[in-house]
Amino acid sequence: MGHDKNAVRKILDAARVAGRGALTAPEAKGLCEAYGIPVPKEAVAASAPDAARIAEGIGFPVVMKIVSPQILHKTEAGGVVVGVRSAAEAEQAYGNIVASARRYDPKASIEGVQVQQMLSGGQEVIIGAVTDPAFGKLVAFGLGGVLVEVLKDITFRLAPASREDALSMLDSIAAAEILKGVRGSAPVDRESLATTIVNVSQLVSDFPEICELDLNPVFATASGATAADVRVVLDFKPLTARYRPDQATIVRQMNRIMKPDAVAVIGASAENGKIGNSVMKNLINGGYQGAIYPIHPNAAEILGKKAYKSVKDVPGVIDVAVFCIPAKFVAQALTEVGEKKIPGAVLIPSGFAETGNVKGQEEVVAVARKYDVRLMGPNIYGFYYTPKNLCATFCTAYDVKGATALSSQSGGIGMAIVGFSRSSKMGVSAIVGLGNKSDIDEDDLLTFFEQDDNTQIICQHLEDLKDGRAFAEVAKRVSKKKPVVVLKAGRTSMGARAASSHTGALAGNDRIYEDVFRQSGVIRARSLRDLLEFSRGIPLLPTPKGNNVVIITGAGGSGVLLSDACVDNQLSLMAMPPDLDAAFRKFIPPFGAAGNPIDITGGEPPTTYQNTVRLGLTDERIHALILGYWHTIITPPMVFARLMVEVVKEMRGTGIVKPVVASLAGDVEVEEAAEYLYQHGIPAYAYSTEIPVAVLGAKYRWARGAGLIPAT
Amino acid sequence: MGHDKNAVRKILDAARVAGRGALTAPEAKGLCEAYGIPVPKEAVAASAPDAARIAEGIGFPVVMKIVSPQILHKTEAGGVVVGVRSAAEAEQAYGNIVASARRYDPKASIEGVQVQQMLSGGQEVIIGAVTDPAFGKLVAFGLGGVLVEVLKDITFRLAPASREDALSMLDSIAAAEILKGVRGSAPVDRESLATTIVNVSQLVSDFPEICELDLNPVFATASGATAADVRVVLDFKPLTARYRPDQATIVRQMNRIMKPDAVAVIGASAENGKIGNSVMKNLINGGYQGAIYPIHPNAAEILGKKAYKSVKDVPGVIDVAVFCIPAKFVAQALTEVGEKKIPGAVLIPSGFAETGNVKGQEEVVAVARKYDVRLMGPNIYGFYYTPKNLCATFCTAYDVKGATALSSQSGGIGMAIVGFSRSSKMGVSAIVGLGNKSDIDEDDLLTFFEQDDNTQIICQHLEDLKDGRAFAEVAKRVSKKKPVVVLKAGRTSMGARAASSHTGALAGNDRIYEDVFRQSGVIRARSLRDLLEFSRGIPLLPTPKGNNVVIITGAGGSGVLLSDACVDNQLSLMAMPPDLDAAFRKFIPPFGAAGNPIDITGGEPPTTYQNTVRLGLTDERIHALILGYWHTIITPPMVFARLMVEVVKEMRGTGIVKPVVASLAGDVEVEEAAEYLYQHGIPAYAYSTEIPVAVLGAKYRWARGAGLIPAT
Repeated sequence: MGHDKNAVRKILDAARVAGRGALTAPEAKGLCEAYGIPVPKEAVAASAPDAARIAEGIGFPVVMKIVSPQILHKTEAGGVVVGVRSAAEAEQAYGNIVASARRYDPKASIEGVQVQQMLSGGQEVIIGAVTDPAFGKLVAFGLGGVLVEVLKDITFRLAPASREDALSMLDSIAAAEILKGVRGSAPVDRESLATTIVNVSQLVSDFPEICELDLNPVFATASGATAADVRVVLDFKPLTARYRPDQATIVRQMNRIMKPDAVAVIGASAENGKIGNSVMKNLINGGYQGAIYPIHPNAAEILGKKAYKSVKDVPGVIDVAVFCIPAKFVAQALTEVGEKKIPGAVLIPSGFAETGNVKGQEEVVAVARKYDVRLMGPNIYGFYYTPKNLCATFCTAYDVKGATALSSQSGGIGMAIVGFSRSSKMGVSAIVGLGNKSDIDEDDLLTFFEQDDNTQIICQHLEDLKDGRAFAEVAKRVSKKKPVVVLKAGRTSMGARAASSHTGALAGNDRIYEDVFRQSGVIRARSLRDLLEFSRGIPLLPTPKGNNVVIITGAGGSGVLLSDACVDNQLSLMAMPPDLDAAFRKFIPPFGAAGNPIDITGGEPPTTYQNTVRLGLTDERIHALILGYWHTIITPPMVFARLMVEVVKEMRGTGIVKPVVASLAGDVEVEEAAEYLYQHGIPAYAYSTEIPVAVLGAKYRWARGAGLIPAT
Repeated sequence: MGHDKNAVRKILDAARVAGRGALTAPEAKGLCEAYGIPVPKEAVAASAPDAARIAEGIGFPVVMKIVSPQILHKTEAGGVVVGVRSAAEAEQAYGNIVASARRYDPKASIEGVQVQQMLSGGQEVIIGAVTDPAFGKLVAFGLGGVLVEVLKDITFRLAPASREDALSMLDSIAAAEILKGVRGSAPVDRESLATTIVNVSQLVSDFPEICELDLNPVFATASGATAADVRVVLDFKPLTARYRPDQATIVRQMNRIMKPDAVAVIGASAENGKIGNSVMKNLINGGYQGAIYPIHPNAAEILGKKAYKSVKDVPGVIDVAVFCIPAKFVAQALTEVGEKKIPGAVLIPSGFAETGNVKGQEEVVAVARKYDVRLMGPNIYGFYYTPKNLCATFCTAYDVKGATALSSQSGGIGMAIVGFSRSSKMGVSAIVGLGNKSDIDEDDLLTFFEQDDNTQIICQHLEDLKDGRAFAEVAKRVSKKKPVVVLKAGRTSMGARAASSHTGALAGNDRIYEDVFRQSGVIRARSLRDLLEFSRGIPLLPTPKGNNVVIITGAGGSGVLLSDACVDNQLSLMAMPPDLDAAFRKFIPPFGAAGNPIDITGGEPPTTYQNTVRLGLTDERIHALILGYWHTIITPPMVFARLMVEVVKEMRGTGIVKPVVASLAGDVEVEEAAEYLYQHGIPAYAYSTEIPVAVLGAKYRWARGAGLIPAT
């Protein structure tokens, strides 16, 4: 359907000229009509036969209302008749309305009687739009009345929303079933609702000055969706555009910063305990093979490297400058970095916005913009990029290479990442501190890691998004290729937001993050430990080829808990086909339980695990395995672990690659077995049934979001 | 309000005699009237003036309906008038109804016109009752319409429910706010609703044959609650009473079983690898000081202990017999145990109900009942009771004494308990396997541990409750004294239940467990790891004296995540009073953040942690502390840990005892620090912000449930 932008422009311009922050009802209706958003049909009748004719054109029932500038309280004046059901009734109602109005106010000028389509029946829903500080225009959908007001059952998508987005919104509310028809009512017309959602989202996207919009209620029936009431709030203040290079530029910049051939350390020091000393040591001892240039006002050499007074004195090209100097000296040094045409500055120093020194930070950003230098930080620990043996931080070194890239907004969480990684021997490609995010933020990192062959998964801790829209755009693209996991902190402290519309008031900050993350294919971690376990486990798991999950367990009790965890993580326990059931039964005792979970029972020898797991891997109908091990003397933990690694390896040799996770119940020896399994590509956990399933569930969420396997 | 049991008895007896499984509407109404459950007022009018008089007595509006045995379709016959608003209208309606009815069926005998109070307005709610296989009679409450049908927003309590139970139900549904009045509507009369809930719960408790009952809808208004429709389903099959000794008997029996002075091992063996050998070794090597009697058909001595052919040959008293013989020999040996008057049998053997041998298990239970022997198992690992150095299991020994008692229905979970305990050095008083629960179950254990001075917390893994009502009764009492933590497995596999009423169909098994656990003061663990962490952490934490929680953190990022976790765990972050805020500010850098969390910032020396934590412990307005540590060179992990232990100890010396938990962010050294803190009474976790807060939250849930501090 074509959208009449000119009509909208005219209405909005009139409001702007009049200095109005909201539209009148007819103006709002005009917007809707211009964008194909159904509103009740109506016309003004000048006579009784006219009313009958109009009503017949609209279709019954209709509502009829007096039109008179002098009569504001129409009902009180006897100027409203609802439920007019025939042409004859319409003629009669016209007479009654005009007569009542005349009696009420003999001096009133009567312009006619409005005849309007009467909406009722169907399901009342709300469709709206808001402008979020981070995400910009968002379209919202919920059910009317208490469901939205009391239960906050509402869902958001970035505007403009696609038809698929819009249809997904209908299924994203808790009360979705209502739309499918309950208690004998017909299901609503999903396409009509989706079209209206799409049109609303396009309208607010085309006209940024539409700050908030409410269609409330919309009557959704089996044959359409009509907005009974429209409310539009305007804000003509122009938005300040954020600095944002194009993707190719970001890639070029970030590649030089993250994979530099030459690093300058501004404030390098030979003195133990100084940040500039720690950074130098980490660079040198970490085995970084590029050039290292210590910058120092008077030292000739620092830790065996020739020192310079300024980056400008360095003869060669420098890719990144790591700042280890107090905040007050940063702007001046950054100017020299700019003059030297260094594309990136890693600002370790604190003492900027986080301590209230907003102005100091703005000054630094201005210098950076002037010289086109990208800033990491300030107020960060720096970053690690292991493929280059690069440890550009003042923290402890980390050098276990792997496919996981991590970032954190907070230094404390960064340290937890390093500690967990070391403790669990997790291989990482990069760990990056983002701190105050004066410039480089999560979406720059996503853009870099997307094309970084050393990275297969990106895991980010964040407290806010400076530009949620840019993040969502990039994440949506990147998550199709590599899993993106986010721990959004501050999710329960919903900022109170000034909002004058209904939808606006409902826009709880966290619900928006939740919906946009899902829309962007981002896997949300619910806790720090989840973020870390996902970081470690997901890259080890091959992508499942389908949704059929099977549990093979030695402990019936673990089987029950593993099943619970499958439901919690939206995993599909495969319904066991009879032939496969029979095949499994051959390997297990008669009192064991086939089906799913397959309970091989506790007293079984290693061969039972081996046979059942091999069958589980071999049969093409099964796409992923969850193992529940029970520590017995007959099958000790390490025997089980070695056997499982062997079977999985043997199957991989034949081209069978399926995700396998394990839960180990037993005495402390199971810890070593879990560690062995993990080191050999099977995420395994002692004393937990829920964590292995959560890791598998996260992999599945990613694969579904990326369209690699169907949604269940 | 008095309840007329005789009236109910008469109605039910009539239904029973007639062989009916449901009551007619007038009968159901009769039940309601007998139990003070308001139903619409009504009477049959014999004339038009009579109708007017009756209507005036009831109050307007009323509904009027023809009463004629021949006229079944009253509306079709023109025999129904709704919304009668005056005496005059009532008179007229009487005439119209009778005339229409005569026209419709001239031969119909007309007995009069029913005049009934017309209900409308207010909020439609559902009050019902169901009979659960485990919990017996339950009363249910929810909002009418889609909220219950689609969102399953319903809550249950054991019947009979107290007024407090009933009032708590009004707050336990997601849409509770609706009852308080939204969109300008008046709040409902909570006392009237509660009274109806209480009366329904009493009615079904007094008359077990009332299998299901629905009041749907109940119109709840600002001045009352009236049930518009009543449905009653009956089941006259008598319930089979479960064997259940009184509490004093259970205590006596369980004390002998759990703290025996003499143990017989039936099937004791000198042969390595045999269960009867493992049990003997565990008893002897564990350091058990009581008498150990190996029972064996022909051995003279086993592992240095004189052996007997039968327990009957043992000269002294025996308190418990541990069975290590195949299932088929159990019944005979148990007969001898009974004849020897041994009060308890620990049935390790499998091969009973869990493998389909239900009859074999029934036979064993019959022997036990005959001789009054309590049975633990069958199909279990046995049990540990560390205060007596008693390891009556075939598993690995465990001897770290402490205040936590654990039990598991599954052997695998039992092994996970042993492994986790050993790994984390958790002190336990007992670990008990319950297996098939042919007799001894969770409530027997609760009754024992309640009076066991060596136990301060009871943690149970279970898949079902054989007698949920007994469990709830005992748990409600015990949880007032000692925390009871339950991991209910199988919570997501809701058994499909045959139900013919509305409420019945809504009674999802897990929601009932959830509500009854809360009603009983039980803390529910959501995962195996939670169960284990709660087991370890809760007994270390002193009971908080109030709800004010304060976070002191070196890492701002941890502070945000810790705050999230507080909200997730229903903890109240104290609003910081200005004087206290000022007092904290004295210890932290000017750019640190007081308030709550108190962000002392990352670069601070040990004294800053010390001063702020000491102040947090000292100030009486603060009831619990959550610490967020950030690993720095200035305050290394073990320095922090030792200091915190010292401060807490110092404060305890002055009588200040408050719960303190800690989250440690940093490199691997924080693991040692967390371990040190834990061993000294401060539950602490590396790389996790959520687990320490969950442990504190569980302690709080217990303290609130036990009435030790107010609910928030």
